[in-house]
Amino acid sequence: MEANDPVLKRLALDLPKPALGDNRSHEKRLKDAIKQKVNEKDIKIPLDVLRALPECLLQSNYNIKALCIFNGQGWRLSNCLKNGEKERAFGLAIDLGSTSVVFYLVDFFSSKTVSTLSLENPQRAHGEDILERILFARKKEGLLILQREIIELINSAIKRLSEEQGINPYDIYYISVAGNTTMCHFLLALDPSHICKEPYIPTANSFDLLEPGSLDIDINPHGLVYCFPNVGSYFGGDLISGILASQMAEKEEISLLVDVGTNAEVVLGNKDWLVACAGAAGPALEGGILSCGMRAQDGAIERVKIDPENLTITYKTINDKPPRGLCGSGIIDLLAAMFEAGLVEPTGKLVRDRMPQRIKEIDGEPAFILVPEKDSASGRPIYISQSDIKNLIRSKGAMYTILNVVIQSVGIEFSDIDAFYVAGAFGNYIDPERAITIGMLPDIPLERFKPLGNSAGKGAVRLLLEKSSMKKVEEICEKITYLEMNVRGDFMNQLTGALFLPHTDLKRFPSVAKRLNL
Amino acid sequence: MEANDPVLKRLALDLPKPALGDNRSHEKRLKDAIKQKVNEKDIKIPLDVLRALPECLLQSNYNIKALCIFNGQGWRLSNCLKNGEKERAFGLAIDLGSTSVVFYLVDFFSSKTVSTLSLENPQRAHGEDILERILFARKKEGLLILQREIIELINSAIKRLSEEQGINPYDIYYISVAGNTTMCHFLLALDPSHICKEPYIPTANSFDLLEPGSLDIDINPHGLVYCFPNVGSYFGGDLISGILASQMAEKEEISLLVDVGTNAEVVLGNKDWLVACAGAAGPALEGGILSCGMRAQDGAIERVKIDPENLTITYKTINDKPPRGLCGSGIIDLLAAMFEAGLVEPTGKLVRDRMPQRIKEIDGEPAFILVPEKDSASGRPIYISQSDIKNLIRSKGAMYTILNVVIQSVGIEFSDIDAFYVAGAFGNYIDPERAITIGMLPDIPLERFKPLGNSAGKGAVRLLLEKSSMKKVEEICEKITYLEMNVRGDFMNQLTGALFLPHTDLKRFPSVAKRLNL
Repeated sequence: MEANDPVLKRLALDLPKPALGDNRSHEKRLKDAIKQKVNEKDIKIPLDVLRALPECLLQSNYNIKALCIFNGQGWRLSNCLKNGEKERAFGLAIDLGSTSVVFYLVDFFSSKTVSTLSLENPQRAHGEDILERILFARKKEGLLILQREIIELINSAIKRLSEEQGINPYDIYYISVAGNTTMCHFLLALDPSHICKEPYIPTANSFDLLEPGSLDIDINPHGLVYCFPNVGSYFGGDLISGILASQMAEKEEISLLVDVGTNAEVVLGNKDWLVACAGAAGPALEGGILSCGMRAQDGAIERVKIDPENLTITYKTINDKPPRGLCGSGIIDLLAAMFEAGLVEPTGKLVRDRMPQRIKEIDGEPAFILVPEKDSASGRPIYISQSDIKNLIRSKGAMYTILNVVIQSVGIEFSDIDAFYVAGAFGNYIDPERAITIGMLPDIPLERFKPLGNSAGKGAVRLLLEKSSMKKVEEICEKITYLEMNVRGDFMNQLTGALFLPHTDLKRFPSVAKRLNL
Repeated sequence: MEANDPVLKRLALDLPKPALGDNRSHEKRLKDAIKQKVNEKDIKIPLDVLRALPECLLQSNYNIKALCIFNGQGWRLSNCLKNGEKERAFGLAIDLGSTSVVFYLVDFFSSKTVSTLSLENPQRAHGEDILERILFARKKEGLLILQREIIELINSAIKRLSEEQGINPYDIYYISVAGNTTMCHFLLALDPSHICKEPYIPTANSFDLLEPGSLDIDINPHGLVYCFPNVGSYFGGDLISGILASQMAEKEEISLLVDVGTNAEVVLGNKDWLVACAGAAGPALEGGILSCGMRAQDGAIERVKIDPENLTITYKTINDKPPRGLCGSGIIDLLAAMFEAGLVEPTGKLVRDRMPQRIKEIDGEPAFILVPEKDSASGRPIYISQSDIKNLIRSKGAMYTILNVVIQSVGIEFSDIDAFYVAGAFGNYIDPERAITIGMLPDIPLERFKPLGNSAGKGAVRLLLEKSSMKKVEEICEKITYLEMNVRGDFMNQLTGALFLPHTDLKRFPSVAKRLNL
């Protein structure tokens, strides 16, 4: 990622001193000096910077540093530092997730992310699901409450990060926010109520650069707040930021980016074209609705292996704490391992007699016990039930189908894809080979899979460090063709075949068929 | 004055309704519709207008009026009016004088000035003279006090004008302010202390367009405040506004504009070039320091005639009230009439024996009694003393000399001047023929003199009604060559000859010489 062109510039200025033959005002003197350094017709000077200017120039013997920030079109002055004054300028990239909000403090002078902070989104109290929050927003003051909660969270993060780094919040001049369409509406207190009903109209697709004061955000008042635009109710700025992070829209080769979550959000394309769609893959992949599913926290089982020969089960938990449940990557591993070991049929049916000691009837249906109660942190067994498996297969099938519909929509094959970026909360942790085994991801060479980590956060950081990103983002939005998955017949037709492990059409998964002798 | 291009535009928009095939956001829908009407790449929508937008569109069946204002480069949205909502949009032009502040409420839709209000500048309590106020500004909180006084005055005028017109202050979207360099510094609380000491550096020559909220001015928060730029400490935005009002910088012919006051401010030029200078003419012309001088208020003598044959004296007072003193135009008339009637010599010496009954010794010097005590409102005589006459001659001589230096600086003659604009507080009331008689104004055909009235106010109104004015003002500022009168030897050399009535060199005043048989 290039970083030689951040949205903040520090200009060392040595101004000519006033004289009878040069009686330009302080303002004109400064603007002329700035114009010699940046190609900008009309530099604006904030009123209070102008008020302090004569004193600043005199005390510095006309030798000052000007901090200018990019406003999308040109530069504007944010501050003048006296000679000898500490030179600090930071940006804050925010991944505004509905579950967690992640902050990245970026030093504009070193182009380094100096600190990261992840905080829980306090709006969860009004609904884990974003639809519940949209309903809450319709209540009197509801929207303002949601906004205030998120602003307070941002301000508390600014305070914490500033204290930790020994800087002043006023040393932060720029914020970039990547969030989904609804989260951005909450942040700006824009009416979100049309997002979730046909024809799915957000109040805004793109957001003007905002003064921090207009949102009560406590950074330098002459800074700016940038929100990534969205291209629709279901394709938000977090994904646009992800596209920016992947650089896929700058390459000749075709890439595919998938953000794995309750909604599977997919982008396919290259520097010339982009096709996107989002569809419900269901919450099963994240572990949300499974009997023993949990978030990726201490004690969550993130890796599972079952020896196909001797059926020895091994697993690994996050931070090696006693097991408490299964997180997303663990669930995919488990299903793949069970399938490989013949513990589950291609239809998803549990094979009772392969490992009968591990099969128990729970809540009136068979379940496979991964961790017996004696080994579990809670004293309760950790298991996957028959209906958990059905849910999982539905989710992985939906995911694969969405990918396939997108691929077909432009008339290419999975093998034409040069890079396959896996993003999202647990994208980093998915083992592509396991995901291929269950038929969730297409059967392409493993080296083409590239975990992207927190792509929304990475894109937000890139925006701060490369000012040309703003233009790139605009181009991305203009380029994207959005496929409405919900209204496409293809999806339902194709889904049926994907509701098997790995698929009814084994030619689609040659490596799996070969390995498992299917 | 053209008025088809104001800084506020009302756009009637009929937006396509959302549909599954057109799920642009409300924001995008609105911006696209605006872009079809105005050639603007990036229209900004204020956050609270955006917040109200979905409701506004729904209630209006997607039929709205958008009010856009010109921000110097392009248009920005200030408000969206629902179908049927009262359509009102006003601008406020302010002539920010150090003595009086004059307000002009302009209706953007009719292009008419619907109301005018003149209020006394409350800063006078800190000094009648602007230098005293600059000293006061240096005291702790002094500058903020001066600012607050002027802002409160503006807000009270807004309130009065709004109530009078039955409108809401939020219906006012634009303010243009023409004031001298120091007054503009007070308004914006910019350090004025370098204005009055060598090398005379203002804090700012030009002022960015300001949000009303940044100055606590109570108009529509999405409006703008424009301050005319200055070209130096002694050539302020009031004069730039005057140049705009005169249209002299748009003509082929050469014009001369003079603002008559304590400082004589002069601009000479045409559409290709402008030369300006300001010099102290002294306060005598305004009546300020004369024994019986007064402001142009009820009872001020504004016209004086003396029959050269029978020496009958006639005069006229403002609003025909009993005489209380002499205002500027009355003083010029009086001196001219006395000179014509042989009551004063070309040197300025009073002729005692021409009308001995009117000559009295007052405060140890001779004085000419214009109004005997029995006819005066105060019961005290109204007179002009020998030293008053000396002061007057020094002032008129300085005025003429400044004009002459400017003319000579570009190598032309007074006869080359096509239009001679007389502006300023009492410019309207000066009788050019009387001013020529005493040698204050050059001896050119009377029809070339054009009173400009309140040129600063007129320019500020023009700025609101013709958005291209902003560019014109910039061009005026770039074009002006400023002559430092204080440092020119010419001035002192030429002044001597001008300290006579009308001048030592009678060839310069042929019409006066002929009429008076000199």
